Amino acid sequence: MPFRETRLFRLPMRHPGDVSAIEALFDAGRLRPDQVVAILGKTEGNGCVNDFTRAYAVDALSWMLERRGVDATAVAMVMSGGCEGGLSPHFLVLAVAEAEAPAPAPRLAVGVAFTPELPPEALGRMGQVRATAAAVRAAMGQAGITDPADVHYVQVKCPLLTSARIAEAAARGESVCTRDTYASMGMSRGASALGVALALGEVAEDQLCDAAIGQDWSLYSRVASCSAGVELTRNEVIVLGNAPGWGGELRIAHEVMSDAIDLPAVQRALAAAGLAPRSGGQLGEDQRERLVAVLAKAEPSSTGLIRGARHTMNDDSDINATRHARALVGGVIAAAVGRTELFVSGGAEHQGPDGGGPVAVVVREV
Amino acid sequence: MPFRETRLFRLPMRHPGDVSAIEALFDAGRLRPDQVVAILGKTEGNGCVNDFTRAYAVDALSWMLERRGVDATAVAMVMSGGCEGGLSPHFLVLAVAEAEAPAPAPRLAVGVAFTPELPPEALGRMGQVRATAAAVRAAMGQAGITDPADVHYVQVKCPLLTSARIAEAAARGESVCTRDTYASMGMSRGASALGVALALGEVAEDQLCDAAIGQDWSLYSRVASCSAGVELTRNEVIVLGNAPGWGGELRIAHEVMSDAIDLPAVQRALAAAGLAPRSGGQLGEDQRERLVAVLAKAEPSSTGLIRGARHTMNDDSDINATRHARALVGGVIAAAVGRTELFVSGGAEHQGPDGGGPVAVVVREV
Amino acid sequence: MPFRETRLFRLPMRHPGDVSAIEALFDAGRLRPDQVVAILGKTEGNGCVNDFTRAYAVDALSWMLERRGVDATAVAMVMSGGCEGGLSPHFLVLAVAEAEAPAPAPRLAVGVAFTPELPPEALGRMGQVRATAAAVRAAMGQAGITDPADVHYVQVKCPLLTSARIAEAAARGESVCTRDTYASMGMSRGASALGVALALGEVAEDQLCDAAIGQDWSLYSRVASCSAGVELTRNEVIVLGNAPGWGGELRIAHEVMSDAIDLPAVQRALAAAGLAPRSGGQLGEDQRERLVAVLAKAEPSSTGLIRGARHTMNDDSDINATRHARALVGGVIAAAVGRTELFVSGGAEHQGPDGGGPVAVVVREV
Amino acid sequence: MPFRETRLFRLPMRHPGDVSAIEALFDAGRLRPDQVVAILGKTEGNGCVNDFTRAYAVDALSWMLERRGVDATAVAMVMSGGCEGGLSPHFLVLAVAEAEAPAPAPRLAVGVAFTPELPPEALGRMGQVRATAAAVRAAMGQAGITDPADVHYVQVKCPLLTSARIAEAAARGESVCTRDTYASMGMSRGASALGVALALGEVAEDQLCDAAIGQDWSLYSRVASCSAGVELTRNEVIVLGNAPGWGGELRIAHEVMSDAIDLPAVQRALAAAGLAPRSGGQLGEDQRERLVAVLAKAEPSSTGLIRGARHTMNDDSDINATRHARALVGGVIAAAVGRTELFVSGGAEHQGPDGGGPVAVVVREV
Repeated sequence: MPFRETRLFRLPMRHPGDVSAIEALFDAGRLRPDQVVAILGKTEGNGCVNDFTRAYAVDALSWMLERRGVDATAVAMVMSGGCEGGLSPHFLVLAVAEAEAPAPAPRLAVGVAFTPELPPEALGRMGQVRATAAAVRAAMGQAGITDPADVHYVQVKCPLLTSARIAEAAARGESVCTRDTYASMGMSRGASALGVALALGEVAEDQLCDAAIGQDWSLYSRVASCSAGVELTRNEVIVLGNAPGWGGELRIAHEVMSDAIDLPAVQRALAAAGLAPRSGGQLGEDQRERLVAVLAKAEPSSTGLIRGARHTMNDDSDINATRHARALVGGVIAAAVGRTELFVSGGAEHQGPDGGGPVAVVVREV
Repeated sequence: MPFRETRLFRLPMRHPGDVSAIEALFDAGRLRPDQVVAILGKTEGNGCVNDFTRAYAVDALSWMLERRGVDATAVAMVMSGGCEGGLSPHFLVLAVAEAEAPAPAPRLAVGVAFTPELPPEALGRMGQVRATAAAVRAAMGQAGITDPADVHYVQVKCPLLTSARIAEAAARGESVCTRDTYASMGMSRGASALGVALALGEVAEDQLCDAAIGQDWSLYSRVASCSAGVELTRNEVIVLGNAPGWGGELRIAHEVMSDAIDLPAVQRALAAAGLAPRSGGQLGEDQRERLVAVLAKAEPSSTGLIRGARHTMNDDSDINATRHARALVGGVIAAAVGRTELFVSGGAEHQGPDGGGPVAVVVREV
Repeated sequence: MPFRETRLFRLPMRHPGDVSAIEALFDAGRLRPDQVVAILGKTEGNGCVNDFTRAYAVDALSWMLERRGVDATAVAMVMSGGCEGGLSPHFLVLAVAEAEAPAPAPRLAVGVAFTPELPPEALGRMGQVRATAAAVRAAMGQAGITDPADVHYVQVKCPLLTSARIAEAAARGESVCTRDTYASMGMSRGASALGVALALGEVAEDQLCDAAIGQDWSLYSRVASCSAGVELTRNEVIVLGNAPGWGGELRIAHEVMSDAIDLPAVQRALAAAGLAPRSGGQLGEDQRERLVAVLAKAEPSSTGLIRGARHTMNDDSDINATRHARALVGGVIAAAVGRTELFVSGGAEHQGPDGGGPVAVVVREV
Repeated sequence: MPFRETRLFRLPMRHPGDVSAIEALFDAGRLRPDQVVAILGKTEGNGCVNDFTRAYAVDALSWMLERRGVDATAVAMVMSGGCEGGLSPHFLVLAVAEAEAPAPAPRLAVGVAFTPELPPEALGRMGQVRATAAAVRAAMGQAGITDPADVHYVQVKCPLLTSARIAEAAARGESVCTRDTYASMGMSRGASALGVALALGEVAEDQLCDAAIGQDWSLYSRVASCSAGVELTRNEVIVLGNAPGWGGELRIAHEVMSDAIDLPAVQRALAAAGLAPRSGGQLGEDQRERLVAVLAKAEPSSTGLIRGARHTMNDDSDINATRHARALVGGVIAAAVGRTELFVSGGAEHQGPDGGGPVAVVVREV
């Protein structure tokens, strides 16, 4: 096996079907289509049940890759809907290229794996937990990561329940974890996150059961980031960590925000990656150039409070709670880094503590 | 005239009609109802045309004050709708009490004034500009502020156009500045802000005309904060500044955010008030206790960009642009101060530069 | 006991706090405040959790009635939020006045009753069902209605579960039907509706059990209309029917819409009240003048289909499903009657069949 | 030239990217891809500026047609976003096949034409009006319709202004008709409708000018239906009428709804097509089978009233006015026909009178 190098490109999109920035990379010879292993996208839908911007982007990416001779089904595509507040729509393209030699220190390593198709009745339950854990272990192996401590971010894209899928299960005499299609997104994200925690030893299997999913918030992963979407019926898993033997200049670090306004946690993550803020508490332009990507989770605290003050996210029937949370956390992180191209994903069930969530940064070493 | 002291109380509300925290102050003898000169409120509506949480709060406050023998019409009430992201609903009660002696240094001074009733055809036009300027000068006089440089925050509550008001004007053969009721809020805020700028000499009268309102963003006030609401038909003006001869412990400072993620400007405003952030870039608990109130304006940049990256606020037909902007700026400021009880008001037309806005802080001197 | 006459006034509101049309009735001497027994209102909020237009209207009505010496707590007030589509905000004021003599035929009769306080553990369960049934029988007695077939509309306002109430029950070792406070609204409505059905013999007691509530949609009332509110801890019941011995000119009739577009059911209800549509299928102006009020329930079908065609209500995360349903049913009924002042209320658990609901009309006899 | 026959298929979609029902027609040999001349679609987005379901459907249709060897750019595709209330997402596929002989009476005839690319500065102004009129005349010629009275429906799909397009025009020193992207949809629809009216002689050219567009509602077309979308930059025009010399069984008729609840107008349109409602005012199942398609426009009245009662559409900042209007008119028409697969398009500026709009029906002759 030749030496490998993980490459990561942050690219803008003009609308959910606009893949021109990626094609420009291909046409310029800066990236080979067959090197792409995963594409993350922040698309400008509502991030909830009827957010078709995710499927639109996935279809546009798939048609484009197929036109260039790539089997799109082998590329993990995770579109996170919702660009509330200042969040800017963008793609994060992950590729694995050959490297002449390994770097002197551990470098960004990526592994991708998929679960089998998940029937509606498995979502939000132990079936999804165990299938996800197996996929995480497979992806770690692919990335050459043996110590869970070297895993800094695990992206999972998981299915949700729609009226049609609930009816299909009922037709087979199967029950589902919830008949509320919006609530099903949280159950699927939560079960997937616990699958990551199980694979990384953050929780023990005997702590887990169907009843704990979406209920016992003391159980969580510090590196999981899960997004639910109507466009897929299996879990897609992308493991990011630092591993020896990889080439390139990229390194990843992470921290956990204890609540939605935990700026110090964001600063610690940046510091762990070698980026200390300038006066005013914000990165300088030169530092921003080294910051390739920021990935974070956001959710409203279930207590209805942030440091004792009431928030209205959970009781708002006009704007879904996850939309408020993305806007808020996006503002907190933008304050620190001075940029709005942030992959802030909503719904952090079992991903970090209640009301908080993981934040990971990928930087270019100097 | 006896010595005066401005008092400011930040109080939570459980819902827009909940004035119990204010009544508790009265019942505990900590504040006399007749000392109240103004009440600002951040209420959990949409902050747009059909936001009835503002009128609900004003009615609840008025009924409560009348029950306690106060003429509520003499109290300026400015409810700013919209608690997007993490913003926490709260009241800011401004009162003027007698002081035994003036403080050794200038202290927070407040002045309140009202324009005459503004007919629909005056909104968003020079009529509203000039009436607002006159009210600002009257309020400065009341506060004993002679130098415009000592004015750090001018809150204006202004009317908007509804279908009914447009029809009423048309019935009198009068035209209005716009038939779009939502757009009318921005025109009314903009004309009011230019009225503040005119009174403070930030712009010269010959620079102003109907056509410049809502068009020439190079004209703006650095201290104006204007909110439009369906519940009033005149402008209410509250001037806050530092003036000699006042007692008490409160002082106000301000800065201007050049864009929505200008954390350094927020840090400068805090520093000007004597609050330097701890490690991690956020105020410590002891510093937060000295920070009585934070007041800021938020708006989406008309360019559709934040530091070159596209935002989706202006093209979102599900969530109004001002709602996105409040959530974003609320996140940026909460990152700096570690609190979500922030009076972040949307729609900063002619209030600070395009996409930015004023931020003011009131602190208790030690 | 003197002869009685039920009076019903349909009055517009300019905003949720506008009770001027009711006060005008009082001031004109057309209605005595002490004669008011109930006020229904269609207010322009979202009809969901954070709809404060309902509380605003109730507070405004209460303050106004108290000013006029009426004990507002003795007046049943049921505000239904949501004026989607063309629905026009309005009040329906029910009053009982003395009549000189009974009418030659049965006339609109009203009875109001309350259940005892309902402990949290009773909500959404048989305890609430039985208590509601008893209150319905009491209200029928007050209205002088003996035959359930003469009951055409039963409005119930019922409590919901809050975190505090759930904790209070737990402290006594009692469980509740759900720990999801939003879900508890539907459970409370459903149990209340089944209580109406039990009292009227629409379902037999041996068909009912805790497990059937919110599950077995084949069990429903054809005349119940229930709404849940946080401001009360008992059920308020308003029974409307036709009874002998009452004076006045009003009569009520009802039908059940089998789905959301069941125009023939609406036409049958109108015909039962003596109103046959003119050519074009819509009432004529003279007929509309006789039609005092229309009251109906609306909900999206849980199948996701209307006559085999997919609807998007249940999967829409931007607009709550009940909002779509009110707009749709409002359009169907407006097509028949040619008016948009319709009391169309959402959330029809056990109130009519899945996707359908009761529709009642009150007409003035000629 | 051989005899022609217009064919029209109404097909469901499971989501905006689902074109499987159309492909099934092709695969079954019931329709040849090269016969398709236009595809109308009702997609489940918000129907406003950031409704990407329209572009998603157009891309999915285009990719599918290209795969089958058809030049998709030659097929007019008009996606109307918004399935509020009960409206069911569906496609209307228009095709022209060869006929053995002309029918004994005039039959449905279709003509398609396109304007040149329209720069941002032309939208909502006379440039767009004249270009549209020319395209309508070209489409009539293609359909073999000489008398404007034989034109019953003209579908226009037109561009809108986005922040990006406004900036592009500004960069060239060009102004646009409005900087409000949402308002631009109405201006573009209005100018397009006046272009139809000009071509059909419904208004005279000397009545038209930039200032009249979006202002003088007395000027309108009785057959125009215009939808604006972000996915195109020219006007697409589809003319539908009855013409001699065409084969097949289809015929079209239309009427104009004078307001949003004008059921009699819908009944007249059905009657003109030979469909008289059964008792209950709704079509019977056998009649529904003959009713191939219903196409209508909806908009809120600018007066804020429907027959004197206040509606809340224009003042709702949570749900755009056109969304309310589609739900309402969809309910009125569904009441008459007993089906929710209705092509109800929002925004009827200059398409029918203020608050009303055209309604057309295509039926299969027996």
